[in-house]
Amino acid sequence: MFGIWGHDKAAEITYYGLHALQHRGQEGAGIVISNGRTLQIHKDEGLLNDVFNRSHFQELKGRASVGNIHYVTNGNGGVENIQPHLFHSQTGSMALAHIGNIMNRDELRGQLESEGSIFQSETDTELLAHLIKKNGQKINEQSITNALQQLVGAYAFVILTEEKMYVALDPHGIRPLSIGKLHDAIVVSSETCAFDIIGATYEREVRPGELLIISRDGMKSTRFALREQRRLCAMEYVYFSRPDSDLNEVNVHTARKRMGIELAKEAPVDADVVTGVPDSSISAAIGYAEQCGLPYEMGLIKNRYVGRTFIQPTQELREQGVKMKLSPVRGIVEGKRVVMIDDSIIRGTTSMRIVRMLKEAGAKEVHVRIASPPAKNPCFYGIDMSTREELIAANRTVEEIANLICADSLAFLTPEGMEKAIVQQTTLNQGVCQACFTGQYPVKKNRK
Amino acid sequence: MFGIWGHDKAAEITYYGLHALQHRGQEGAGIVISNGRTLQIHKDEGLLNDVFNRSHFQELKGRASVGNIHYVTNGNGGVENIQPHLFHSQTGSMALAHIGNIMNRDELRGQLESEGSIFQSETDTELLAHLIKKNGQKINEQSITNALQQLVGAYAFVILTEEKMYVALDPHGIRPLSIGKLHDAIVVSSETCAFDIIGATYEREVRPGELLIISRDGMKSTRFALREQRRLCAMEYVYFSRPDSDLNEVNVHTARKRMGIELAKEAPVDADVVTGVPDSSISAAIGYAEQCGLPYEMGLIKNRYVGRTFIQPTQELREQGVKMKLSPVRGIVEGKRVVMIDDSIIRGTTSMRIVRMLKEAGAKEVHVRIASPPAKNPCFYGIDMSTREELIAANRTVEEIANLICADSLAFLTPEGMEKAIVQQTTLNQGVCQACFTGQYPVKKNRK
Amino acid sequence: MFGIWGHDKAAEITYYGLHALQHRGQEGAGIVISNGRTLQIHKDEGLLNDVFNRSHFQELKGRASVGNIHYVTNGNGGVENIQPHLFHSQTGSMALAHIGNIMNRDELRGQLESEGSIFQSETDTELLAHLIKKNGQKINEQSITNALQQLVGAYAFVILTEEKMYVALDPHGIRPLSIGKLHDAIVVSSETCAFDIIGATYEREVRPGELLIISRDGMKSTRFALREQRRLCAMEYVYFSRPDSDLNEVNVHTARKRMGIELAKEAPVDADVVTGVPDSSISAAIGYAEQCGLPYEMGLIKNRYVGRTFIQPTQELREQGVKMKLSPVRGIVEGKRVVMIDDSIIRGTTSMRIVRMLKEAGAKEVHVRIASPPAKNPCFYGIDMSTREELIAANRTVEEIANLICADSLAFLTPEGMEKAIVQQTTLNQGVCQACFTGQYPVKKNRK
Amino acid sequence: MFGIWGHDKAAEITYYGLHALQHRGQEGAGIVISNGRTLQIHKDEGLLNDVFNRSHFQELKGRASVGNIHYVTNGNGGVENIQPHLFHSQTGSMALAHIGNIMNRDELRGQLESEGSIFQSETDTELLAHLIKKNGQKINEQSITNALQQLVGAYAFVILTEEKMYVALDPHGIRPLSIGKLHDAIVVSSETCAFDIIGATYEREVRPGELLIISRDGMKSTRFALREQRRLCAMEYVYFSRPDSDLNEVNVHTARKRMGIELAKEAPVDADVVTGVPDSSISAAIGYAEQCGLPYEMGLIKNRYVGRTFIQPTQELREQGVKMKLSPVRGIVEGKRVVMIDDSIIRGTTSMRIVRMLKEAGAKEVHVRIASPPAKNPCFYGIDMSTREELIAANRTVEEIANLICADSLAFLTPEGMEKAIVQQTTLNQGVCQACFTGQYPVKKNRK
Repeated sequence: MFGIWGHDKAAEITYYGLHALQHRGQEGAGIVISNGRTLQIHKDEGLLNDVFNRSHFQELKGRASVGNIHYVTNGNGGVENIQPHLFHSQTGSMALAHIGNIMNRDELRGQLESEGSIFQSETDTELLAHLIKKNGQKINEQSITNALQQLVGAYAFVILTEEKMYVALDPHGIRPLSIGKLHDAIVVSSETCAFDIIGATYEREVRPGELLIISRDGMKSTRFALREQRRLCAMEYVYFSRPDSDLNEVNVHTARKRMGIELAKEAPVDADVVTGVPDSSISAAIGYAEQCGLPYEMGLIKNRYVGRTFIQPTQELREQGVKMKLSPVRGIVEGKRVVMIDDSIIRGTTSMRIVRMLKEAGAKEVHVRIASPPAKNPCFYGIDMSTREELIAANRTVEEIANLICADSLAFLTPEGMEKAIVQQTTLNQGVCQACFTGQYPVKKNRK
Repeated sequence: MFGIWGHDKAAEITYYGLHALQHRGQEGAGIVISNGRTLQIHKDEGLLNDVFNRSHFQELKGRASVGNIHYVTNGNGGVENIQPHLFHSQTGSMALAHIGNIMNRDELRGQLESEGSIFQSETDTELLAHLIKKNGQKINEQSITNALQQLVGAYAFVILTEEKMYVALDPHGIRPLSIGKLHDAIVVSSETCAFDIIGATYEREVRPGELLIISRDGMKSTRFALREQRRLCAMEYVYFSRPDSDLNEVNVHTARKRMGIELAKEAPVDADVVTGVPDSSISAAIGYAEQCGLPYEMGLIKNRYVGRTFIQPTQELREQGVKMKLSPVRGIVEGKRVVMIDDSIIRGTTSMRIVRMLKEAGAKEVHVRIASPPAKNPCFYGIDMSTREELIAANRTVEEIANLICADSLAFLTPEGMEKAIVQQTTLNQGVCQACFTGQYPVKKNRK
Repeated sequence: MFGIWGHDKAAEITYYGLHALQHRGQEGAGIVISNGRTLQIHKDEGLLNDVFNRSHFQELKGRASVGNIHYVTNGNGGVENIQPHLFHSQTGSMALAHIGNIMNRDELRGQLESEGSIFQSETDTELLAHLIKKNGQKINEQSITNALQQLVGAYAFVILTEEKMYVALDPHGIRPLSIGKLHDAIVVSSETCAFDIIGATYEREVRPGELLIISRDGMKSTRFALREQRRLCAMEYVYFSRPDSDLNEVNVHTARKRMGIELAKEAPVDADVVTGVPDSSISAAIGYAEQCGLPYEMGLIKNRYVGRTFIQPTQELREQGVKMKLSPVRGIVEGKRVVMIDDSIIRGTTSMRIVRMLKEAGAKEVHVRIASPPAKNPCFYGIDMSTREELIAANRTVEEIANLICADSLAFLTPEGMEKAIVQQTTLNQGVCQACFTGQYPVKKNRK
Repeated sequence: MFGIWGHDKAAEITYYGLHALQHRGQEGAGIVISNGRTLQIHKDEGLLNDVFNRSHFQELKGRASVGNIHYVTNGNGGVENIQPHLFHSQTGSMALAHIGNIMNRDELRGQLESEGSIFQSETDTELLAHLIKKNGQKINEQSITNALQQLVGAYAFVILTEEKMYVALDPHGIRPLSIGKLHDAIVVSSETCAFDIIGATYEREVRPGELLIISRDGMKSTRFALREQRRLCAMEYVYFSRPDSDLNEVNVHTARKRMGIELAKEAPVDADVVTGVPDSSISAAIGYAEQCGLPYEMGLIKNRYVGRTFIQPTQELREQGVKMKLSPVRGIVEGKRVVMIDDSIIRGTTSMRIVRMLKEAGAKEVHVRIASPPAKNPCFYGIDMSTREELIAANRTVEEIANLICADSLAFLTPEGMEKAIVQQTTLNQGVCQACFTGQYPVKKNRK
C-alpha cells in the first residue's frame, strides 16, 4: 500500500513506490488519483508491469494518489477484489486501499445487509466504505473515526477523496505503515523501501490507533483508539518484508541477521559450511555463519526466470529430476556437513525438498536451523498461513519434524531469541506479535 | 443481453449467443453463471473474443447464465461499468444485466445515498440492485416488483440468483427482448439472431411491463405495470439491430427494405445506379433500387480489417488521400449519377465524407436518400445519439443539410413512411417510438 | 503484394496498401524499407494489425518499400516463410516478395544445392534470390533477367535493393499486378483496391513477361520473355479479389454481377427469392436476381466477429445446432423457394451445410446456382484448391452433386458464359486461365 | 546453448536447460528438434517464457534437440539472427547453434558470396552452414571438419541433422562447453547449471579442438585442430556464468569467493562493513569479508521486478531521486565506512552511481574494490565489452578512475591474483584468457 499527497507526478511516484512493494503480492495492482475535482482509477490483475503502461500515466493526472498491490489469500481472486476500491456518490467520491484483516467482518456485514447494503466484493475496504457512509453520512474525520471504532482486527487504511487523504492504523500497530517526505509531498507506505526507491526521506511510523488527515492545510493527527503497545507482526521481519526496509526503525536485514546470530547462540552445530534458502533466509544465514565462525556459502541458487508463464515440468519429468526454482550447488555442498538456514517452516514440504536436493548434490550431513520459532497457530491478522491442520509444527515435536524432513538435526529460534533480535534494536515502545508461534493473540475477536 | 435457464452448457451457449449480439457494443463483455449454489463471473474490457478463452469455460460450470455486451455511452468506460454486475450477501447472490436508460436515476440514487447506499459504478443495474435490497429485503418477486415500479425509463433487465432468473421489460416495451426455447431450456435475448446462432426457436416477445420468473418450476409471468401500447425504438430497425433479427416479429432486413421502397415512392430520382452505405443501409438500398427499377450496385466497400489495433493515418496522410473504413468503387460510380442510400444522418460528417469520396471516384451526381426521418431530438431511452446541438437536422432545412454535405439532392423518409414500413408488418399491438424524429416521447421523466 | 518507390512515408503507405489486400491471406505480413543505404525489415505471423504497431513505423524510415501478406498453402507456415525475404551481401542487400507458384522449383533447387546453395525456407522468393546471385553475380537487370528466364510458372515478383525496385510478371500474366501513381511516387499492387485506399491513381497493368526497373531515373520497361496472350486466373474474379478492384481493367464486382446475369440466362429457375453466400457471391446474386426479375434478399448473414480467437463450438454443441460463421434469415426464407447463388463449389461441404441451414430455417425449395463452372482440376499456379481427389466435381455429374448437397436443383455457369462475363469487358488482349475448370493449362511444367 | 541426444522429452528438457542459461541473454530463444526424419523449429524474440508456451511442446516431438538463448551484441537484433538456424536441402536438413565470435568472418563471407552464396543474417552459424555445404557437399564429419578448419576465433557449435548431433569447440577452448548424461541421453551445455536443473550428471568438458559426433552408435570423439592449452575466458568466471556452474571443473561461486579473498590479501582496507553489488559480486564480497574479518552485509538491494515492460522514470523524476534497479540499505550503510565490492568496471558509470547512492544513504566512506584487473582491451571472442574508447581503464590510472567514480579509495585484483583464484583450483591443463585485462590475445585474426 502506498499513498502520496502533493506531488505533480503523483501517479508515477505511486507506480515506482508500488514497484518496491511488488514482493508483497503478485496478483494485481491498482492506482487511484485525485486531481482535486474527480478521482480516476486504473487497476487489473497481474504484476505491476502488466497492469500499467506508459499510456495510463498520460491519463492519471493529479497531485494525490493511492495505490495497492494485490495479495491473494483465501481465494479472493478476481478483479473486483483488487484495490483501491472507488465509490461514487452525488456528494463526492472516495477511494480506499487496505492491508490486514477485519475479524468481525461477518457481524458488521450481516448488520449492514439487514439495513439494505449490498456488496460486490469480499474486501474489508468495501466494508469500511459502507460503515463510513452508513445513514448517508458525509466522508469526513467524524464518520471515518466512527467507522474505524467498529472494526476489530489488524489493518492499515488509506482513504482518498477529492480533497483529502486519510491514513489509519489499527490500535496495536500489527500491520506496518510509515510516513515519509518527498520535497513538500507527504508519502505513506507499508515499507520504507518504497521511500528509498523514490528518493523520499523517512519521517516516522504511523502510531497505533492514529488517524491522519492530510489536506491542503497539512497533516493533522488524531486518535480513534486508546494507544496500546505496538505489536508489529513478527512475520514481517521473518520473511514478508524486504531486507532494505526499516520496520519500526529496525532494519529488516539487520533483524534477520541478528536472528541468525541468536540462533547460532542457541543451537550451534559442528559443520563445514552454512547456506541459506534464497532470498529471505540469506541474512540469517550470514549472521549464523558469522557467529559460529563457519564460512557462509551459496549452496542454493534461485532461478530468477521462473515466472508465471513458466511451463511447469510434468510429474514424469519432476521424477526424472527436473528442478524448478532452486538448484543446489554441487561444487559447494559435495562431501560437506551443511547447515541450512531457513526463515520458517510452515508445511514442511519445501524444507523436505531442499534437504533431499542437498543430499543428492552430495552433502554428507544437512543440519536445518530455522530463524524463527515453530509456527503452531493460525494468523487472524492478514498473513496467509496454513490452517492449524496443515502447520507441520502444530502437533509435532522438533524430533518428529526433523524426521519428516530428513534433516540430520533441526533446531528453531526461541520466542525470546526472536524478541531479543528485533525489539531490543528500537527505542520505540514496541513488542512484536508472535501469536503464530506462542498462541498469545494481542487482539481477540470478541474483544468488546 | 442474453440469458439461458436449464442447459448443461449454459456458459458456452451464452458465449455464442453474445457473439450474435457483438454488433451492439464492442467495449466489454461479461458472463455470470449459476450452478444452483453460487454465482461465478468473468468480465473484462474488449471484444468477446478478447475477454473469453477456452479456459474460462472450464470454470464457468452451471445450468443458468446471463451475459452482456458492453456498449459505451457518455463515458461509462472502465471495467467497473461492464455488466453483468454481481452482488453478494450473506443470504445469497444476485447478478444483473441491463440495457436501456433509467430517467429518474439521479433522484433514486440521491435518495438511496441519503440512506447510506454507496455506488461503485454509474450503471442502472447497480441502482436496481440497491432498490431491490433496500431495507434488507430478500431478492424475490415482491422486492423486484417493488423496485421496478420505482423506475421511469426504457429498459430490459435480466436478474440471476442461485435459484431463479427474473426477466423484466419496461412498460412501453421500448427496448427489445425476446423469449426462445432450446430443447428444454428457456433463453432470452435482445435480438432473435442469437436464437438462430444457437439453434433455438423463437417463442414470443416479452410483453411491456411483464416480469418473468424462471425457476425449476418453469416460467411464470406476472405484470408490474399496466399494459400500454408497445412502442419499440425505431432506431433498432433503422441501424442498431442485425438484419437477420426479427423485432416484434418483423424482420429487420425486410423492414429496412420496405423503408427503401417507401423512400423510393416518396422521393424518387432520375439516376443511373443505387448504392448503399455498408452494412446497415444495404437493405434499404436494395428496396429503393427495386422500387425505382434502377440497378443496385456495390459502390462502396467496407474494409473488414480495420479493427481497434489499426494504426490510424495521420492528418498528413489523410489529406494525401489515405482512406480507412470505406472505399468507393471507381469502376461502378465513374461517370454515373449515383443514388446513395444511408440509414440516417446524425452529425452529417460521415455523409459529407462519403459524398466527396464518390465524387472523387468520378460520380457525376450524388443524390442522397435517407431511409429514416431527420433526427432532431435527443434520445433518453439508451441510444447514444448526439446532443441536440450536434444533430445536423435539429435546426436546419433539408436544403441546408444537402448543401452542407455537398449532395446534388437530399431527401428523408417521412415518419408516416417509416410507420408504414414497420408497423403494418406485424399483428402485435405495436407502434414504434419515433421520438428522436418527431419529438413525441412516450415516457416522460416526471411521469408520476 | 504491394510496393512503393519515391514517397517519404513509404512504410506507412505500404501498411495501408496491405490493409486493402488483407483478404488475400491472414497468416503473416512483412514490410521491407530502403533508405537508400540499407534495407530494414519487420515481419511476423498474424494479421497486419497484429504484426505492426505504431512504434515500427518510427523505425522503418525510407522512400521505397515492399510489403507482403502471407497466404499459407501446403503447410508453408512459420515465420521463416513469411515474405518479403531479405538477403545481405557485402556488396548490397536485396528484398524479395512474391505471389504465385514456380513449377520447376524442385529441379532448380536441386541444381543449386548441388552447387553449394543452402535454403532456410520453402519459398520461391528464396529460390529466385539464389538464381540471381548464382556465380556471385551482382543484383542488376542482367542477373535478374537471367534468373527469371529459368522460371516456369505463374508469378509476380517485387525486388527491392538499396537503390532500385524491380517488378516482374510471368509470361502469361496469370497472377495480377497493377501499376499506379501517388503524386510522384510509383506504386505496384496485386489489386487496384490498394490504390484507392491510399489515394493513388491507376496507370496500367504490368505486362506479361515484363520486367520494370524503377530508380531515381524513373521507370524503365524491359521484357524477359516473349509476350503471350494474357491469361489472368479466373478464380481472381470468382472469389479471390475484392469486388472494388479492377483486374485487367475489369471491375471485379461488375464481372461477378455479369457472371450472375449469364448464369440466369443459362440456368433460370422458377423461385421466390434470390440470395447469395456472403461476401463473395453477393454480386453474382444481384446479377442473377436482376436478370430473372426476382427479388434479391439477404437470406444469409455472416457473423463478422468470428475471428481467430473465436472458441469453436464442440461437436456436441454443433450437433445441437450452434452455428458459426453463417446464419440463415428465417423471416426471409421461411416458406419460400430460394435460389442460393454461390461463387464456386470446391469440396461441397459448405454448400451442403448452407442448403441444410436454409431448409431448417423453413425454405420450401433450395435451388443452387454456381457462378463458375465445375472445378475439376488442381491449380498449379498458386491458388490453394483441393487435390483432384477432394474436388467434388472431379468425377461426378451435376445430378450426383445436387444429390450430395441436398439441393432441389443445381446448375453451373459454363466456361463460355464466364469468358463472356469477364473478357468481353476489356480492351486488353486478354483471355482468362480456366484450367481448373477446363483442364487446359496455359503453362506446362516441362515447357522447354 | 544446450543440446540433448536420445531422450523422449528432448524438447522439454531443452526448454528447462535453457531456463538455467537464461542469464546469458534475454533477447530471444529457439529450439530445433529432430524426430529422426525431419527437423522442426520454433524461435522468437523475447525471454524463453515469452517464446514458448505449452502448445509448442505438443508439436516439437523427437529424441534429439538443440536450443539457444539469444544474446544481442553489435545490433544483431531481429528474429532472423536468433538461433538455432535451420537449413533445408533435398538431401536433408541441418540446424546450427553457436556461441562465440568468428574473427575471419568477413574474408570467409566475401569469398562465399563471390561464389554465389547469399546470406539472410549476420550470424556465424549461417557462415558455418555455407562453409559446410560449399560445393554441394553432404553434411558429415568430413565436411564439418573442413569447415571448422577454416574458422579463426572463439566458438562452440552444436549441429543437429535428422540423424546426428555434432558438437565442436574452438582450438583454445575459449568458450565453455560441457558434456553430461541424463540416464541414457547425452547432453551438452554452455554451463553445468543446466545439468543440475534437469537432473543430469556431469561427464567432462569438451576438449579444445574436439569434434564430437553423436548418433545411434554412441559418441565418437575426433579432433579437427591440434590440442592447445585451454584458455577459458576469465570473464565467464568474473560475471557471465551462474555461480552454481562449474567451468572446467572449477565452481564459479568458489572462484569468485577466492578472487575476493585474493583481493583482500592484495588490497585490504580499514572499514566497518563489506557489501557487494548484486548479484554477480556477492561471492567476491563474502570472500573479501571473510578474509578481512569484516562483517558482510546486504548494503545494496536489487529490485527483482524491473523487467522489460517496466516504465523507466523520466529524467525529471530521476533527478528527483527515483531509483530503478538498485537501492542502498540506509539502515546498514548509514554512518559506516563501506567496502563496496564489484566484479568489474567497464565504463564506470554504474560504479559512479552506486558510490553516490551509498553516500546519499549516509555512508561515511566508500572504498571500491574490484574483483578483477582493469579492463583495458576489447574482446574479439564474443563478449560484448565496450570499445577501447569507452573502457574507463584503458587510458587512466587507478587514481584517476577513483576520482571519476568518487570513491574514497579504489583497488583492482591483479592478473596474478585472478590466475591464482581460478587456475590453481583445477587439475585440467588450463590457463584463462585474460586478454581484456592484459592484452595478450591467445588467438589472432591472421593466425595463419
